[in-house]
Amino acid sequence: MIYLDNAATTEPNAEALARAVRFAAEHYQNPSALYGGGLAVQSALKEAREKLLFLAAGGAGGEFELIFTSGGTEADNQAIFCGGRRGNVVTTAGEHAAVYRSATELRNRGVEPRFAPLKKDGSVDGAALLSLVDEKTSLVSVVHVNNETGAVNDILSLAREVKRKNPRCLFHSDGVQAFGKIPFALGREIDLYSVSAHKIGGLKGTGALIKRKSLALAPYLYGGGQEGNLRSGTENVPGILAFAYAAEDRFRDLGGAAARLENCREALFSALDGALFTRISPEDGSPYILTVAARGLRGEVLQRMLEERGVIVGTGSACSSKKPHSRVIEACGYGNDISDGVLRVSFSPATTEEEAAAAARAMNGAAAALKTKIG
Amino acid sequence: MIYLDNAATTEPNAEALARAVRFAAEHYQNPSALYGGGLAVQSALKEAREKLLFLAAGGAGGEFELIFTSGGTEADNQAIFCGGRRGNVVTTAGEHAAVYRSATELRNRGVEPRFAPLKKDGSVDGAALLSLVDEKTSLVSVVHVNNETGAVNDILSLAREVKRKNPRCLFHSDGVQAFGKIPFALGREIDLYSVSAHKIGGLKGTGALIKRKSLALAPYLYGGGQEGNLRSGTENVPGILAFAYAAEDRFRDLGGAAARLENCREALFSALDGALFTRISPEDGSPYILTVAARGLRGEVLQRMLEERGVIVGTGSACSSKKPHSRVIEACGYGNDISDGVLRVSFSPATTEEEAAAAARAMNGAAAALKTKIG
Repeated sequence: MIYLDNAATTEPNAEALARAVRFAAEHYQNPSALYGGGLAVQSALKEAREKLLFLAAGGAGGEFELIFTSGGTEADNQAIFCGGRRGNVVTTAGEHAAVYRSATELRNRGVEPRFAPLKKDGSVDGAALLSLVDEKTSLVSVVHVNNETGAVNDILSLAREVKRKNPRCLFHSDGVQAFGKIPFALGREIDLYSVSAHKIGGLKGTGALIKRKSLALAPYLYGGGQEGNLRSGTENVPGILAFAYAAEDRFRDLGGAAARLENCREALFSALDGALFTRISPEDGSPYILTVAARGLRGEVLQRMLEERGVIVGTGSACSSKKPHSRVIEACGYGNDISDGVLRVSFSPATTEEEAAAAARAMNGAAAALKTKIG
Repeated sequence: MIYLDNAATTEPNAEALARAVRFAAEHYQNPSALYGGGLAVQSALKEAREKLLFLAAGGAGGEFELIFTSGGTEADNQAIFCGGRRGNVVTTAGEHAAVYRSATELRNRGVEPRFAPLKKDGSVDGAALLSLVDEKTSLVSVVHVNNETGAVNDILSLAREVKRKNPRCLFHSDGVQAFGKIPFALGREIDLYSVSAHKIGGLKGTGALIKRKSLALAPYLYGGGQEGNLRSGTENVPGILAFAYAAEDRFRDLGGAAARLENCREALFSALDGALFTRISPEDGSPYILTVAARGLRGEVLQRMLEERGVIVGTGSACSSKKPHSRVIEACGYGNDISDGVLRVSFSPATTEEEAAAAARAMNGAAAALKTKIG
């Protein structure tokens, strides 16, 4: 099997998994406990936290702190609900459901959500976003890498412009598809940043919300006061350790992997039959994602045919697979002939050029066969 | 080391851990994905869900559904914030912080929290609880086993009485220290029940909120619509599988372990020097918890002395270890001479009578030495 749905979940880093298990078995004590065993767990958490902060913010790591959460979704929920408590919240039509649906829910909590439109590639229309920001905007949230198209938003410059317009407004970004994949370091313009472990070789059930230290933020989960009172609940220690190890491993050759995968992505796209496929992903997007549409065909049927041919791809966001077709692709301005036929091919650093070439052949074959079949 | 802080976290079930790891490595696909690998993960989740429901509710399992969460704290937060949206919420002074602090936070959300007082053993004063329930009560939440004293609340009969007074009122119980430890099956009086994995041999980062099927409940985390739209976020698959396996293992001899630990608990207490220690736990409480106070001494100092003697105990709830002394023990009606000296000794099915006897000797020795030292 050639697995090219790494943006949904990627294979766990074997060494990260082994370390997590060893630690879970040997150091199972509660990190809140004040005896030796608990303190050892606490200090392992501290080390993981500092490692991740350094990876995310480099030299500016000291200006940020990190709240471990149960994943990207919880991090996004805390950012939206606790960061956007007044006036209006400005976000985009291209957000992952964890931001999009949280923003929509704000309406029931007395806060007005505003959604900026997308460009054709899935990136936000920056001017339109800015025009939605006013003196009552408490939070702006813009996804870093669009999970359905791979488009990269220049969040540092967007955040600067937002703050020029309203200096008190907070800026959050969902970095789940960016962290550990594209070269980036958090700048002081960013107040809140969400990351996830299982997209980069960690385990499901772990993520983090990185926040600027000077920012006062309410918790979203109340209880024992863990995570500096910002997120209660016993920490998912093995998941956290696996996250830190996997992230460190990804960052070791982040630039090299990105360059290599960009070649893979372009080779794959070049090998696709232009009479069958339309490219949705931009050329300057994340090298980890190539989204195309088989015009007039159904993505989920193609997905099954590709599986039979030994190639696993996505049909958009796995997280919203229950919906008929993608809200985000529609927001890019595509009609049904395109949005019904979307395939998202997503890579990992282990993806090879041979796999990409084989995937292109299978995609051409499956799309041609389906087209013939439906006449 | 004799580890007797199992109510904080207990050693993971080795086979549960091994299975979780194997599954994480081999079946890493996203359970929302619609290809074979995703469907296999989905079906493993379904099996774990049904297993846990059967363990929690026996034959009535079909009347309930189970929402996997990141732990007991998240389950409690969802129950309180999503179950208690109007009027007032009645709970007790003996709740774990995850319920207590969530209930306190309700005030900021326009809902009045009401706290029923405790009896000396930590169980709730049932008559006082009922007197707080009125036609505006939207939710009553009573901890099943008090995590600091081990007192067991008869939640089935409390729920019946609550519903006789206000049939529309929901009843939630935090079952984190009960599930997999004391014999119990959910009855139709219970609407919501929180459970946790790492207290019974599962892993930190996994828990569940069990809810009556017919009950409409809002999600607390918004996003991709997982868990029947009741809890978004990619499921913590390895944690969930370990939870189901560990729980099943606990239930295999739940009654036998409980009977054996009751003997351990009583043997330990009988061996304690009555001139030094006062018992806080009731005799009819959870066999897994024996809480005592070394009168006039400081629990955290004793804890350290015991650690030097090779015995690990708790000083109350590990989850609130940052606070000077326990809110719950105070609510039982004890003054500082008792609440400063609290030690919580908590067992696992693997605890032996020899360990209990050795712990009693160490506790007598440490308390006597400390008493002599401070004169």
